Amino acid sequence: MRPSKRAPDELRKVTLERAVARYAEGSCLVSFGETKVLCTASLEERGPPWLRGSGKGWVTAEYSMLPRATHTRTRREISSGKPSGRTHEIQRLIGRSLRAVTNLPAIGERQITVDCDVIQADGGTRTAAITGAWVALHECFTWMRGRSIISVDPLRDHVAAVSCGISKGTPVLDLDYAEDSAAETDANFVITGSGGLVEVQGTAEGAPFSEAELLDMLRLAKAGVADLVALQKQAIAS
Amino acid sequence: MRPSKRAPDELRKVTLERAVARYAEGSCLVSFGETKVLCTASLEERGPPWLRGSGKGWVTAEYSMLPRATHTRTRREISSGKPSGRTHEIQRLIGRSLRAVTNLPAIGERQITVDCDVIQADGGTRTAAITGAWVALHECFTWMRGRSIISVDPLRDHVAAVSCGISKGTPVLDLDYAEDSAAETDANFVITGSGGLVEVQGTAEGAPFSEAELLDMLRLAKAGVADLVALQKQAIAS
Amino acid sequence: MRPSKRAPDELRKVTLERAVARYAEGSCLVSFGETKVLCTASLEERGPPWLRGSGKGWVTAEYSMLPRATHTRTRREISSGKPSGRTHEIQRLIGRSLRAVTNLPAIGERQITVDCDVIQADGGTRTAAITGAWVALHECFTWMRGRSIISVDPLRDHVAAVSCGISKGTPVLDLDYAEDSAAETDANFVITGSGGLVEVQGTAEGAPFSEAELLDMLRLAKAGVADLVALQKQAIAS
Amino acid sequence: MRPSKRAPDELRKVTLERAVARYAEGSCLVSFGETKVLCTASLEERGPPWLRGSGKGWVTAEYSMLPRATHTRTRREISSGKPSGRTHEIQRLIGRSLRAVTNLPAIGERQITVDCDVIQADGGTRTAAITGAWVALHECFTWMRGRSIISVDPLRDHVAAVSCGISKGTPVLDLDYAEDSAAETDANFVITGSGGLVEVQGTAEGAPFSEAELLDMLRLAKAGVADLVALQKQAIAS
Amino acid sequence: MRPSKRAPDELRKVTLERAVARYAEGSCLVSFGETKVLCTASLEERGPPWLRGSGKGWVTAEYSMLPRATHTRTRREISSGKPSGRTHEIQRLIGRSLRAVTNLPAIGERQITVDCDVIQADGGTRTAAITGAWVALHECFTWMRGRSIISVDPLRDHVAAVSCGISKGTPVLDLDYAEDSAAETDANFVITGSGGLVEVQGTAEGAPFSEAELLDMLRLAKAGVADLVALQKQAIAS
Amino acid sequence: MRPSKRAPDELRKVTLERAVARYAEGSCLVSFGETKVLCTASLEERGPPWLRGSGKGWVTAEYSMLPRATHTRTRREISSGKPSGRTHEIQRLIGRSLRAVTNLPAIGERQITVDCDVIQADGGTRTAAITGAWVALHECFTWMRGRSIISVDPLRDHVAAVSCGISKGTPVLDLDYAEDSAAETDANFVITGSGGLVEVQGTAEGAPFSEAELLDMLRLAKAGVADLVALQKQAIAS
Repeated sequence: MRPSKRAPDELRKVTLERAVARYAEGSCLVSFGETKVLCTASLEERGPPWLRGSGKGWVTAEYSMLPRATHTRTRREISSGKPSGRTHEIQRLIGRSLRAVTNLPAIGERQITVDCDVIQADGGTRTAAITGAWVALHECFTWMRGRSIISVDPLRDHVAAVSCGISKGTPVLDLDYAEDSAAETDANFVITGSGGLVEVQGTAEGAPFSEAELLDMLRLAKAGVADLVALQKQAIAS
Repeated sequence: MRPSKRAPDELRKVTLERAVARYAEGSCLVSFGETKVLCTASLEERGPPWLRGSGKGWVTAEYSMLPRATHTRTRREISSGKPSGRTHEIQRLIGRSLRAVTNLPAIGERQITVDCDVIQADGGTRTAAITGAWVALHECFTWMRGRSIISVDPLRDHVAAVSCGISKGTPVLDLDYAEDSAAETDANFVITGSGGLVEVQGTAEGAPFSEAELLDMLRLAKAGVADLVALQKQAIAS
Repeated sequence: MRPSKRAPDELRKVTLERAVARYAEGSCLVSFGETKVLCTASLEERGPPWLRGSGKGWVTAEYSMLPRATHTRTRREISSGKPSGRTHEIQRLIGRSLRAVTNLPAIGERQITVDCDVIQADGGTRTAAITGAWVALHECFTWMRGRSIISVDPLRDHVAAVSCGISKGTPVLDLDYAEDSAAETDANFVITGSGGLVEVQGTAEGAPFSEAELLDMLRLAKAGVADLVALQKQAIAS
Repeated sequence: MRPSKRAPDELRKVTLERAVARYAEGSCLVSFGETKVLCTASLEERGPPWLRGSGKGWVTAEYSMLPRATHTRTRREISSGKPSGRTHEIQRLIGRSLRAVTNLPAIGERQITVDCDVIQADGGTRTAAITGAWVALHECFTWMRGRSIISVDPLRDHVAAVSCGISKGTPVLDLDYAEDSAAETDANFVITGSGGLVEVQGTAEGAPFSEAELLDMLRLAKAGVADLVALQKQAIAS
Repeated sequence: MRPSKRAPDELRKVTLERAVARYAEGSCLVSFGETKVLCTASLEERGPPWLRGSGKGWVTAEYSMLPRATHTRTRREISSGKPSGRTHEIQRLIGRSLRAVTNLPAIGERQITVDCDVIQADGGTRTAAITGAWVALHECFTWMRGRSIISVDPLRDHVAAVSCGISKGTPVLDLDYAEDSAAETDANFVITGSGGLVEVQGTAEGAPFSEAELLDMLRLAKAGVADLVALQKQAIAS
Repeated sequence: MRPSKRAPDELRKVTLERAVARYAEGSCLVSFGETKVLCTASLEERGPPWLRGSGKGWVTAEYSMLPRATHTRTRREISSGKPSGRTHEIQRLIGRSLRAVTNLPAIGERQITVDCDVIQADGGTRTAAITGAWVALHECFTWMRGRSIISVDPLRDHVAAVSCGISKGTPVLDLDYAEDSAAETDANFVITGSGGLVEVQGTAEGAPFSEAELLDMLRLAKAGVADLVALQKQAIAS
């Protein structure tokens, strides 16, 4: 039995609320159960220096947690003067995931920065962030098309993410904090709307895991992402 | 006529929503019109080193803005490795304001950190933060009393804050961003429930201001804070 | 009786010595009793980037204390790699005060940086710094006019500053360190030669203060600044 | 045909040279073709603060590249004052990989730091580092057993790593820099001597990859790691 | 002919004014011509951690320049967040020079920090700083003996410093900024009262220099330091 | 008797191995006994900003130690965010030494950065670094001439360096770590192929030293450098 009483292949309640930020070109408040992430997409007319003259744009992401998103207060990263290794890892992952489904030349020489700020953290913040960031990015591109800044939609596909784990020997989907802390293996999957793999990151926390376990987790993730993509479609249609 | 169509002595619509953060000992989402600040109060069992052995506790505050709280995206302070002078000023002001109405020995040798994170910024973020922080702090002390960590309420009084300005020659209350950018003089007042002054900070943005103008603004502020204190009372009673 | 035996409305002995730095375009060594601040004004031919093309110049200030200006040695800010919040607050205040009386277009696209380095600190360093900085800035503009870099004096008025406080229930002028440490309320006033208010910053250190107390302090400050302005006139005439 | 003329399942020439550093308790110079990494294991008698009193030890890793390890010179990270996100990611990966096969209580409350400094970089530096780090760590534990600092070998198994990729549609093993830059998908596998998975990190650089491709790469990696483990055995026997 | 009209073996006018800082345990304002350095010695009751339990004390130095000590304004080091290499070099040199003549056990487990802040810079700031720092340190030890904190004078000898150079082929003593900028070779000598060498630092700015030139400079320096030591004796006797 | 059994005027075994780095334009692995430094010279087509338009190039150096180059592990400088004062001193010294024998206009507006990374440290790392850096720089210039980037050799002479000391009253050449730690005086000499002095840096670690001792050390250094220059000639001829 999972701590949350969910079936092994059951997602937490996921909501994707669009247009929540007054000033951003795109935004989405995503929740996976008690995990809540505010994603905003900001258009900047200047692309990054290394793309100058290439005709291509860029999509990047930044990730942060409010200090009391967590069970006990976490010090702000500004106190130590630099982002932690974990923050770096996560924001690089979000950026790569979004770029994997974006036609960069269709943006022109501009940059979209997707800020993912964790308001509340109960496990799975990076996967929630990717799932919500896609909605914010979509809204931003719609805004740009509405103003004729771009003419075609730069998004080639959906992308969403979910964590899986081996918990007491059983492969389970979408771990919350309690389950994640105790799982033997933890894996994050970033998958497109058409089922292609963008990122697979599996880590043994205790004993090594087997190929069979990796495949079990991958199957859970594919089904979970299919549900998340359906929710993304509802969110952008609303 | 003010840009927002308000009367000179009229506050924006103010809401104070309590108990919005699952993990914090106290929390309040405050909005002054489109300005929204999430305040959380976190209890730490260890007080600051300089009070060790004094029997006194401490209340401190941190302030930050989400990058897209603003009309155009603001770089995260972590990018430059240190908080800006403005951030320092504001968080010191919030901390002093809260301590002015707190009986520090009644907390014992503990520290409460009130985090004020601006979700959306339309002027007056520091005054909204102080007004909401008081509610979060009150909730934290109630939580502590409920667990018999402390026996008496350390709060001696309410404290709330509001900005005033001289706009096109007229003293006005609670400036939004549009009005604030154009005002000749800008002043922030932090006032207790019983009408005592905790902080008065007036700055001439253009021509110097007169003693009469300072007094006009002070009168607006006193009335505004009285309304804010009434809203705080409703919030903590709910 | 004040610790310094002064009457409540009595300034410490104030001296303003001009032309004390061999290389700076303007300089002033100001003392308010045992508080001594060296102010130098440096002309830089390039204005700040955000004013490029505007035809306007800029006046900015930096503030620092020598490590042993104080009763016990204070660590250099370079040890922690960043200026403290207090330093930020003070240098922003000095800069705003000087700009309040400066006609920025009359400078042309140049920048004057006024460095205020505290040689010895016995309370009131920021108000002494503003008072001396004005003299250094005046000398710098005279130097520029002597070389026909500018044709009219960019200074529209004098500006000077003084602290007041409520000490044992009595409003007093120009607090030294001993008095400042014990005062219930502390306020800094920046006032022009014609009596206009540029900055009013009052802070309750203990109990809140009343409107009447604010006004008492303001009256002391106006008289004090009038005396300081008279001393500035002597200094620039010498 | 691969740029290096190797068969798809062929490793580069791998060498593991032990005892190359005069002062370190363990060391190994590992080369995967032109990629060369110097790994040193340093025993520190004090474990990390968060394990105090737990009876457990810790193994951690640091990773860096000499500035001219690369085709064009890379700026030292000290120039920007902080390690890059990439460095953080890699050193966390090396540390986790080593701890996955280490019996931490058998070390006692001590810390081993394995420094992996890249002398020359031609792709696959992180996988070479893990493979060599295990040898250095083994040598360090042998040194400790020789001095009766510990009584049993804390290593439960070998661990080694290799990269795979999809290059022009074909799954290939152990990419060099030229191949890595052009691959559609890039995956790193950390695997134990008994074939258990410790880390799987696959990233689509261009189009998403399929489950079948992931499995093809995993099979190549398992065979490659088996060869690397055989080489580790030779190295420690010599 | 030297730019300053001095003979090759002639010092600038040197003054050493003692007891210039109200709060420091020792102080000296030293001038070598237009170069002026304020040296303060601060007693801290706690020695550095690495001497705990050794019974020995420590003398260290910090060096800084006011931004407008120089012909054109120099940015504060705090702007870049770290002291420059030059600052590091100089403060290490001052500290070593003072320790060379100090009996560290006679101080007990305490630390004296000598701050050398350059008020005005016209060449030779580090040699002036060493010469003045000795006087401040002497005054601090006298203060300590007056309060019976120590019983014997920890100073074993005088130490003073002077720069020499080869200017247009001629060895010259005590270079000012104009001469220093144009000299072919620049050397700093730190020498004790009894003529022993503590530091010799010679640098060819243009062509290499010869052994004979090194010896010529050394002889000038010895005579110069003898004069400086005589001035130190007058300063401490006054 | 020296700890290493060498005669007072005897160098350690010195080797200079050229072309050891695959990607650098010039490289040299230098060893002075157990001290080993990898020097690489990297050509950058852009000179430093302050030489733009001057027609001159620049040679600069960076210095670092691997953490376990030393007897006990040294923390990486990146952990504290800034290079130590010692690192600054050494890399400035290497850069000045190389520029002293380089005809900068002959390089054109380009920069050569010589990285000196200490692989193993047994005393004398800075002098070994200078000696090896010259060989790497020479190889880089040969590479540039081979590609007709420059037409004449910018090197006017050899430069090499060696340390000397007074150990138990005797002047000795080329101190290893054990000897260096115990020496009363320590001096580094940078000398050209034709015997000119580029840098002389002597420091009394205990008692001051005399002019005679300085001259004794200088004579040892001149003979030592002559041997080092002979080895440089062999290295570049090979």
